Amino acid sequence: MSQTVEFIRNNRKKHLDWAIQLCRIPSISTRPENKPDVVASVKWTHETCERIGLKSRMMETGGHPLVYAEWLGAPGQPTVLVYGHVDVQPTGERALWDADPFEPTLKDDWLICRGSSDDKGQVLLYLRAAEAWLSTEKRLPINVKFLIEAEEEIGSPNLAPFVEKHRDLLKCDQIIISDTGMYEDGWPTITYGTRGLVYNEVRLSGPKHDLHSGSHGGVVGNPVTTLAEIIATLHDADGRINIPGFYDDVVNPSDRERKIMASLPFDEAKYVTDLGSPAPFGEKGYTSVERRTCRPTLDCNGIMGGFTGPGASTVIPAKAMAKISMRLVPNQNAEKINKLFWQTIESRCPKTVRLEKHEHGAADPYMAPLDSSYMTAADRALKEAFGRDVAYIREGGSLPILPMFKRVLGADSLMLGFASPYCNAHGPNEKVRIPDLDRGAEAVTRLLGYLARQ
Amino acid sequence: MSQTVEFIRNNRKKHLDWAIQLCRIPSISTRPENKPDVVASVKWTHETCERIGLKSRMMETGGHPLVYAEWLGAPGQPTVLVYGHVDVQPTGERALWDADPFEPTLKDDWLICRGSSDDKGQVLLYLRAAEAWLSTEKRLPINVKFLIEAEEEIGSPNLAPFVEKHRDLLKCDQIIISDTGMYEDGWPTITYGTRGLVYNEVRLSGPKHDLHSGSHGGVVGNPVTTLAEIIATLHDADGRINIPGFYDDVVNPSDRERKIMASLPFDEAKYVTDLGSPAPFGEKGYTSVERRTCRPTLDCNGIMGGFTGPGASTVIPAKAMAKISMRLVPNQNAEKINKLFWQTIESRCPKTVRLEKHEHGAADPYMAPLDSSYMTAADRALKEAFGRDVAYIREGGSLPILPMFKRVLGADSLMLGFASPYCNAHGPNEKVRIPDLDRGAEAVTRLLGYLARQ
Repeated sequence: MSQTVEFIRNNRKKHLDWAIQLCRIPSISTRPENKPDVVASVKWTHETCERIGLKSRMMETGGHPLVYAEWLGAPGQPTVLVYGHVDVQPTGERALWDADPFEPTLKDDWLICRGSSDDKGQVLLYLRAAEAWLSTEKRLPINVKFLIEAEEEIGSPNLAPFVEKHRDLLKCDQIIISDTGMYEDGWPTITYGTRGLVYNEVRLSGPKHDLHSGSHGGVVGNPVTTLAEIIATLHDADGRINIPGFYDDVVNPSDRERKIMASLPFDEAKYVTDLGSPAPFGEKGYTSVERRTCRPTLDCNGIMGGFTGPGASTVIPAKAMAKISMRLVPNQNAEKINKLFWQTIESRCPKTVRLEKHEHGAADPYMAPLDSSYMTAADRALKEAFGRDVAYIREGGSLPILPMFKRVLGADSLMLGFASPYCNAHGPNEKVRIPDLDRGAEAVTRLLGYLARQ
Repeated sequence: MSQTVEFIRNNRKKHLDWAIQLCRIPSISTRPENKPDVVASVKWTHETCERIGLKSRMMETGGHPLVYAEWLGAPGQPTVLVYGHVDVQPTGERALWDADPFEPTLKDDWLICRGSSDDKGQVLLYLRAAEAWLSTEKRLPINVKFLIEAEEEIGSPNLAPFVEKHRDLLKCDQIIISDTGMYEDGWPTITYGTRGLVYNEVRLSGPKHDLHSGSHGGVVGNPVTTLAEIIATLHDADGRINIPGFYDDVVNPSDRERKIMASLPFDEAKYVTDLGSPAPFGEKGYTSVERRTCRPTLDCNGIMGGFTGPGASTVIPAKAMAKISMRLVPNQNAEKINKLFWQTIESRCPKTVRLEKHEHGAADPYMAPLDSSYMTAADRALKEAFGRDVAYIREGGSLPILPMFKRVLGADSLMLGFASPYCNAHGPNEKVRIPDLDRGAEAVTRLLGYLARQ
């Protein structure tokens, strides 16, 4: 093992170059015009897998292709399935970036580029580890399968059908994923739970076209005003979500968990300042850490209607829309919450507007067992690679694939996160901390070794 | 007088030709490339004033020039100031017009051309009347001043400074304006009131950039949700505006007015169907006609924040904005209402977001005295020319020049409208009904006579 770990340490420069090559490909999965780039990122991954000695193939899905690669030369040993993604989020407003979002920039310890932390840099850790084992020991200590897709940022619409169709090919004892964050830079972190998600769009329409607000103001139901009024009913004065039945299945964190959470340093004032928010915010009766991980939330992600250009235009808008999403916690069920949401919206929508319902996906929450043998091995590997105790956290975001993997493959997921809390995934100047990637690669290399039965 | 009225009737063809000449000039005030055309329309008006015997000059403003013309040969008689404009709106999409927007077309009773009803056709009524008097009686029965501008369609930015600078030149006892509509074709109409306007933009900001709603949902004040919550407070359950002090100065329509309004035919079901709204709407205790003319209103004209593209993006938006305008009625004061508005928004804005205030203009409401000698004379003139009783209406829109004239010149305004309710001003195929222009010219001719003190 020491030789293998040495290999990781000696190949940092080459491996950083892998990250630069892959990050340079603008694989924005949501933009049809970037389809060739998405395919290019998959192809790059496939070729790298082959080059390091995995058996790899690009496989078609209903949408963007994916990479399936494997090394299965350790009969009797466990089989893990490594999941990751090489597609990225759109870049948003160019002016908010300090440089071209797809021109990887090195600054101090950071690699700055869209996709650097989410998830290209983290996917590569496993190829680095595989290369290290195959170069030094000519084998992996356990069986490893790789499932690297390119539709994660559009909600993995074709992954579940793919996994269902290929459940024998993907059969495994454990899933390992690195698509999460570290508690602090340099602090190895295992995420053992994620929130679920229900993401909907409420569209209201009133008059058949925008009207003069002088000629018709006071006689026409205004879709923008009405939408605002409906949104305002969705929280009560204590910041709780005002949808009947919403909290029925919520399980509060256990005492052990609350103790873990309380043990992690959290500077609320600094947190708020770093985000740029003028004041702390949240549901009464919970700490900020609990609010952002163990409590369900509801947010308006976007709203639009009427005249939004510079200056004034005195119209009564013909229509308005809002994107509204909810984060769910165990044991809330996404389907059930979705029904409750629409029942509530319908019951609060006046007759003066028409309601159109659009759904943009749903995911159940997930929680991994805290004391599995995989968790124990990961704890050891991370502790050795980073030289400090592992932080255990629950993640506020959603990974719909976790409950899907559990359902279809029967396997739990281990989430080892190496993204900086300051990585700004999905935002401008997304970045990843290179020393954490390097130690992450070492941890993953060690983990493969510790998972082998003696 | 009968000879003068006869002149009007005998010169319809020539006067229609005036309208065709003036309408043919594409005097779109908002387009810099049409500046020479705007000047040409002012020049044409100036030369016509001179030709019929008025003392006329083109005068500079900070923007497009205007025409000031006068005939002041009736000492001891009242002086009226005729206001109008010869600039026009852009034509919009050419495909929506049946013919070239600036090639006047005659069809049945209609003259079809951009500017035909708004306001060239109506401005010419006064030149026709002046010519009739000067040709037949060699004098006007009263003193008349003309102020014909070319910036009305861009909000008359230079008119108030011009009027203030030339308040002596423009001194008068009454303003007369024909830039409004008829209640129905052939139905002479006096508009005696307009609503005021306060148009503001509320901008809220929270975190310094859009955040991941999973990582931070539950701990960050969301500017879109907060904006919706603030907007929702602006009306109560009865549709009344919930801004403390907002109704303090509202004068309810008098019994006489309510009777006038109730006497005019109004098919509410058809009105709502025509607009495409799914159901009637409005403040309790008032008819639709009252709601859209005599009651103040508050509308969101536009709203925007966060992710508004197709599909889903799970952000907590960094900012949100809404354009919110209020229509005011006598005796509300725009400045006072503006202050109350911002006081209310500030008091309801939580500490979790920052508030930025933007103002896009304000105008006071206006109401003309219903029983002035000018109103009485106009009633008689219109009734005789059209052969039916006059419709008295209040307009839901705003004409900021009316309170400005009242403030600077101390004079009330008489609004005689000759545009068809189907004229489609500002839209494609703008048109004017020629018989209404001809009767309008006769009415104005008679009015000048009736205003002379015996």
